[in-house]
Amino acid sequence: MLYDLTVVQFSKMLNNLNNILDKAEAFAAFKKVDMAVLLNSRLAADQFNLIRQIQIACDTAKVGVARLTGQLDTMPKHDDTEMTLEELRQRIASVIEYLNGFSEADFAHAATIHVSQPRWAGKYLTGYEFAIEHAIPNLYFHITTAYAILRHNGVEVGKKDYLGAMPYKVPVI
Amino acid sequence: MLYDLTVVQFSKMLNNLNNILDKAEAFAAFKKVDMAVLLNSRLAADQFNLIRQIQIACDTAKVGVARLTGQLDTMPKHDDTEMTLEELRQRIASVIEYLNGFSEADFAHAATIHVSQPRWAGKYLTGYEFAIEHAIPNLYFHITTAYAILRHNGVEVGKKDYLGAMPYKVPVI
Repeated sequence: MLYDLTVVQFSKMLNNLNNILDKAEAFAAFKKVDMAVLLNSRLAADQFNLIRQIQIACDTAKVGVARLTGQLDTMPKHDDTEMTLEELRQRIASVIEYLNGFSEADFAHAATIHVSQPRWAGKYLTGYEFAIEHAIPNLYFHITTAYAILRHNGVEVGKKDYLGAMPYKVPVI
Repeated sequence: MLYDLTVVQFSKMLNNLNNILDKAEAFAAFKKVDMAVLLNSRLAADQFNLIRQIQIACDTAKVGVARLTGQLDTMPKHDDTEMTLEELRQRIASVIEYLNGFSEADFAHAATIHVSQPRWAGKYLTGYEFAIEHAIPNLYFHITTAYAILRHNGVEVGKKDYLGAMPYKVPVI
């Protein structure tokens, strides 16, 4: 289940973010504003801008899955140097490709693995706790904040763009 | 696991929202602005204001758990009439109390139950799909948007307020 919650759902959300950025690009073209204006927008002076929100969303997915599977050494490297929409798309694509390389089997010990970060000063969370209380809420936080920055600037995005398609089923009668 | 992801984690997030609202109240008092100004703020003219974001966050938690457990008839009723911080706090408390009434056993069939909504025109999702692709992303969306509205208005909230406390453990040496 942690596989579905992270690899599968994080990929879906990064694809949704791609679609949201497509709408932002169309909006910028229509309004004749430089896309860089949107990419450098933020909701508060001391908050990260859209570029950084996208970078952190990508890292939350990438590092989250790497930590849960104990495969930190397989992560693609990203230097946080993106300045254009095209560079951000490449980063998103790189993370989706990385996620796609994992299978459910890689998550055999994910729930019980000890997850730590340098700033946690030696303390740890179990993978189960880390996924549910840290990685998942963080991923949605940064995707929603990216969405909110664009929404605030007038880009016509809605909840469906954020959630993406649902696997609706028709009842068998 | 769906119990932890919804009942436990949604309660935690609603408590975090309470703490964020405490900071908003202190900010309003310090700035000598009416709390109603913050409660009626929004990030875009055609987006829901803070009151509505809080109401929807509450409903996402309440209805989500009711649907997953097949207990729609046990839900407390809320008429979306809240206008003050105190009324919103009561609503949040009412939902947390409702969530606390569930146990893991109530989720025995949650993964496979068919979940539908009037607007889905007869189609359904399995409880597993509904939780992972709908209820959970929605809950975080509305909590983050509430946070973003306050952040945009200058309230000093940070990621820790959103995530809440982590159950860090010290390694046994």
